[in-house]
Amino acid sequence: MDHSIWIRKEFQRLSHSLGFQKIPSMEIETRLDKIRTWMETQGIESLLVVQKMDLYYLSGTTQDGFLFVPKEGKPLLMIKRELERAKVESPLEDIVSIQSLRDLPLLIRKYRKKLPKNMGLEFDLLPVRDYLKLQEIFSGATLRDGSAAFREARKIKSSLELGLMRKAGEIGKKVYEEAREILHKGMTEIEFGGLLEAVAKRNGHEGLLRVRSLNYEAYTWHVLSGPTGGIVSQSDSPMGGLGLSSAFPVGASLKKMKPREPILVDFGTCYHGYQADQTRMFSIGKMKRKLIDAYQACCDIHEAALEEVRPGADCEAIFQKTLRLARKLGYQDSYLGPPGLQTRFIGHGIGLELNELPFLAQGHSYPLEEGMTFAIEPKIVFPGEGAVGLENTVVVRKHGYEILTPIEQKIFQI
Amino acid sequence: MDHSIWIRKEFQRLSHSLGFQKIPSMEIETRLDKIRTWMETQGIESLLVVQKMDLYYLSGTTQDGFLFVPKEGKPLLMIKRELERAKVESPLEDIVSIQSLRDLPLLIRKYRKKLPKNMGLEFDLLPVRDYLKLQEIFSGATLRDGSAAFREARKIKSSLELGLMRKAGEIGKKVYEEAREILHKGMTEIEFGGLLEAVAKRNGHEGLLRVRSLNYEAYTWHVLSGPTGGIVSQSDSPMGGLGLSSAFPVGASLKKMKPREPILVDFGTCYHGYQADQTRMFSIGKMKRKLIDAYQACCDIHEAALEEVRPGADCEAIFQKTLRLARKLGYQDSYLGPPGLQTRFIGHGIGLELNELPFLAQGHSYPLEEGMTFAIEPKIVFPGEGAVGLENTVVVRKHGYEILTPIEQKIFQI
Repeated sequence: MDHSIWIRKEFQRLSHSLGFQKIPSMEIETRLDKIRTWMETQGIESLLVVQKMDLYYLSGTTQDGFLFVPKEGKPLLMIKRELERAKVESPLEDIVSIQSLRDLPLLIRKYRKKLPKNMGLEFDLLPVRDYLKLQEIFSGATLRDGSAAFREARKIKSSLELGLMRKAGEIGKKVYEEAREILHKGMTEIEFGGLLEAVAKRNGHEGLLRVRSLNYEAYTWHVLSGPTGGIVSQSDSPMGGLGLSSAFPVGASLKKMKPREPILVDFGTCYHGYQADQTRMFSIGKMKRKLIDAYQACCDIHEAALEEVRPGADCEAIFQKTLRLARKLGYQDSYLGPPGLQTRFIGHGIGLELNELPFLAQGHSYPLEEGMTFAIEPKIVFPGEGAVGLENTVVVRKHGYEILTPIEQKIFQI
Repeated sequence: MDHSIWIRKEFQRLSHSLGFQKIPSMEIETRLDKIRTWMETQGIESLLVVQKMDLYYLSGTTQDGFLFVPKEGKPLLMIKRELERAKVESPLEDIVSIQSLRDLPLLIRKYRKKLPKNMGLEFDLLPVRDYLKLQEIFSGATLRDGSAAFREARKIKSSLELGLMRKAGEIGKKVYEEAREILHKGMTEIEFGGLLEAVAKRNGHEGLLRVRSLNYEAYTWHVLSGPTGGIVSQSDSPMGGLGLSSAFPVGASLKKMKPREPILVDFGTCYHGYQADQTRMFSIGKMKRKLIDAYQACCDIHEAALEEVRPGADCEAIFQKTLRLARKLGYQDSYLGPPGLQTRFIGHGIGLELNELPFLAQGHSYPLEEGMTFAIEPKIVFPGEGAVGLENTVVVRKHGYEILTPIEQKIFQI
């Protein structure tokens, strides 16, 4: 049998039997409409999409290639390697093969008749080398920054997207439930984390959390115990952890977890690309009073923030409210990081990437909208003693919010 | 105590007790010399380094920031967030704080007296948006592609680097040894892979393999069983696997592993940033004769390729030799991928990233040099039935080679 026919049948058979969900054509059309509206307002004639999550969002596949989106007319998906698999995965109609970036003008002219006068690109991620090549081969076109199209379109989630995030949240719940059976005295942070990740994967977690940034790297989970919770690292996060070396200086380490230490487990899960982010505390025996009180303060701050969540509420105002409450409760020097290294956000948008809109943060004064999703994570850090905190992922609903991470809200003490 | 003094002491104490190895000053100096020699030949006055592995290579830390390397004089490391940790991790002398990219000219002028007339940047990865900002703020300078500096400098490994790669190889050996105890009938690919990863992490594996590319994503391991070994995906690899969804279409899936199927375990390990890559076959009961024969052919091809490995041997010629042998053995349609999707390489350089020089591949006619490291991976793919293969990481020695992945070379049958 011809390989291309075979691969379609075989891939369809296997992926169907294992629960792969295809993104429907209607969903893609709605997304494309949002992108086209943005293009209209910006006077952009076409977009060329290369980044993996943007490709997935607009085509349903992440097979390596390029997506050309004209303001009018159908998008053209050009695939470098496994064309047949892309054809099964994507509901788009026009999917063709491409050898290299240099063939773009040829294919666009062939299938879309003319080359665009201007083209939006993902300036926030596209490497300079590709940009310079595109400048050369589209010498008649102006290249513009099109990153905002994705940021804007993706900030409101559809019910299909929320369904996938809910599934990610359910995987997280299973992880925290099994965690109680796995944790034991003398285990290292990374041993515990590694086993939790194995549980998550067994339940369908895709094993990575995506952040839109050149240099971001982290496990999909932090396990920080006692003093490692007081260590900050390269990312803009209240705590970084020790990691395993200077080459990977973040998250769980080879440190053994001791009785009464706060053990913070910040675990993200990913299902069909959609993410949920959650944090709960563990301890072997009872944590010190000071830490239990701080954890309770995090719960109060979490509650106070969520009270404000509804369409129209100002993101920065929610952050400021939590700052005031933390101060009132006596945690001004330890809220969201150690002194001098405190972060300025209490929530980050989440979906296909961990740094989507909205940010509940200083300098982010804009309203929440129905269908926005974010992780909210009050944390308190005592250098030398550890970190405590709580995190849930929520969606903004018409009259409030819904929590997508249904894990029991308590300290898991063994 | 002042937080900056505290963090240095605490971080030093914890990281020392957990075996963090600091890259010594002499090692960094040797690396900088290689970079400066390249700059000399290219007429480049300065380099600005932003990518994480390039930062680590030249400074010993991956804390977020920028490294300015003038052709003459000492490098200047500018750190965005955790300055004190960078000071402990890096042996460089001049390490200062920076708020944003816009402060670069100010700091360079302050510490290095004058701004450069030209500056090399990592064009292969640097996002367009940063490039345009740098063009604006260094308006008097020409910005040039400096990526090759890193590719060239990093292609020969020092004995320190080889020591770290050997450690990564030892972690791999432990994983394959425990794998025999973990594998059982009815397990899914991802359950098996998740548990193997937990073993690797418990032994110090950093949990990611780095590839220098915008869109590369994969687990640090593939577990492909029977038909999933015949599925190709987005990356340039003989087999891709099914993965968990179209958003993560690579590697292990939720498919159950069955008796007599070939189970290919391609597992990379990472220690202090340095990687080893290895593949071995598993089976539950005996694989079919056809597959055992194909595995034996992979072993023969592996052997025949390694016979040629010594300084001066041509990389492409080694690849071509394996092609001829595969053809002679009757695998012309299944060697390195299914028909029509066969890859054109038998080996890839490895170190901090999985796509370093050299490539034993079509179009890569240049000599091997002493101290180069690469993974060699003959694989044979039968669509519908599965993939078999073997992989080791080796270093080119004065009179031949040394294998850095000391796992028994056989089919692990349970």
